[in-house]
Amino acid sequence: MIVTRVEGVDGERRVNRRPDELIVEEPMSIQLDGTIVSTTMRTPGHDYELAVGFCFTEGLLGGHPVLGVRYCADGSAVDSEFNIVTVETGGRAPTPTPRLGTVSSSCGWCGSEQLDELCARLEPLAPGAPVDLDLIGAIADRVLDGQGLFATTGSVHAAAAFDVAGNVLVTREDVGRHNAVDKVIGAIALGSVRSASLPATGLGLFVSGRASIEMVQKAWAAGFSTLVAVSAPTALAVDAARRAHLVLAGFVRDGNFNVYAPERL
Amino acid sequence: MIVTRVEGVDGERRVNRRPDELIVEEPMSIQLDGTIVSTTMRTPGHDYELAVGFCFTEGLLGGHPVLGVRYCADGSAVDSEFNIVTVETGGRAPTPTPRLGTVSSSCGWCGSEQLDELCARLEPLAPGAPVDLDLIGAIADRVLDGQGLFATTGSVHAAAAFDVAGNVLVTREDVGRHNAVDKVIGAIALGSVRSASLPATGLGLFVSGRASIEMVQKAWAAGFSTLVAVSAPTALAVDAARRAHLVLAGFVRDGNFNVYAPERL
Repeated sequence: MIVTRVEGVDGERRVNRRPDELIVEEPMSIQLDGTIVSTTMRTPGHDYELAVGFCFTEGLLGGHPVLGVRYCADGSAVDSEFNIVTVETGGRAPTPTPRLGTVSSSCGWCGSEQLDELCARLEPLAPGAPVDLDLIGAIADRVLDGQGLFATTGSVHAAAAFDVAGNVLVTREDVGRHNAVDKVIGAIALGSVRSASLPATGLGLFVSGRASIEMVQKAWAAGFSTLVAVSAPTALAVDAARRAHLVLAGFVRDGNFNVYAPERL
Repeated sequence: MIVTRVEGVDGERRVNRRPDELIVEEPMSIQLDGTIVSTTMRTPGHDYELAVGFCFTEGLLGGHPVLGVRYCADGSAVDSEFNIVTVETGGRAPTPTPRLGTVSSSCGWCGSEQLDELCARLEPLAPGAPVDLDLIGAIADRVLDGQGLFATTGSVHAAAAFDVAGNVLVTREDVGRHNAVDKVIGAIALGSVRSASLPATGLGLFVSGRASIEMVQKAWAAGFSTLVAVSAPTALAVDAARRAHLVLAGFVRDGNFNVYAPERL
């Protein structure tokens, strides 16, 4: 796409036209055994991973294996038939309820109740090895090496899985921060990542943005031992990570960072 | 909250504990005439603005005025009753359908269809005054002056409305980028912003992150003439802005920026 670039040079405005690569977003609907469970704006690519990762991290599979993943391509549509993906468990997953249905109380819901619900669904993680501070400080730079889209568009989120030696096992990028995480977890679930499987015990998850409670939830559901965020976590995310026994580090800049969970190293 | 700070100083790791302020996120449900239309993780504060702004920008009000906004506080809950807000139109707004219901085709949906739907719902904006390049270059710094939460937490999104003279009329911050925009638009809708009303013809909207199609949609629905994003827009956002006749600038850094819409200045 051709855009107009405006720069101030020596106190004067310089205006010229030049090509610019923009990140693509397209809506994608995820079906579980034929029922739509989510519609998300995503960067096309790794769509099966996104669909499987979403169903897994949201706890929709109920522990049942994924038997198949496919596009809903019946030939009736041209452009849009690759924007819906069905995850199949042969009907063994619990019948999905609309997401708004998770708001159980008729009169509000609060973060601590949300946390209680999460703790009821997920077991605390096994206490892992001592936290490797050098690894946490170094991992951001290593992931950025694999961030191809960011380099060209400057506007995309990244997520990656890394092992205890600091090797980056898989990196995914997406216009949506949650989608990038779901793609990483879906890639592991589908067996596409060598030397990684779920639960991802001992592995770390890196995210390029903030750590909200949903990021902690996804890391926890997939069994990661560590979550490293470039930016800050929210208060609720820290509470959740401490209850999960998930190591949570944030504000990783130039090798410096904060450790939010555990409360004490 | 007390966190562990890890820094590399002269090649050695220095670890100490220090207080850190974290951004708060709490779930909030928005009801329209008693029906839940959304549940979002938001930073508490300006909740009425968020609820009204959401209903307005999503086109849920059907052009009917808001008669009242209130918390669903019936005394049955203690912490959570301020996490649900009801917007009242006296039942005159169209009956809300679940958001997944907006996926009309059974077999996928694509960005251009989404854009067509948006164009069917919203009239193109009136062509405005010529684009003031100096104003666009300066607005980011002016908004950052009003970003109190960002200064303390470093992890929050901001949105602001500004006028043709570059005055920042209202700034709102939230853990969610869409929420910050809805709060700004809700504040204007509720009459809380002096010398601003909807449609916001002639005014500009500033957002601290990327410009996705949802940001363009919200700016367009509120009638802003200009949208300025600190980071890049998506390709679909640019298409939407060009069809809306919305001036779209992005990548605003040190007074330099790109103009994505109109196609030619």
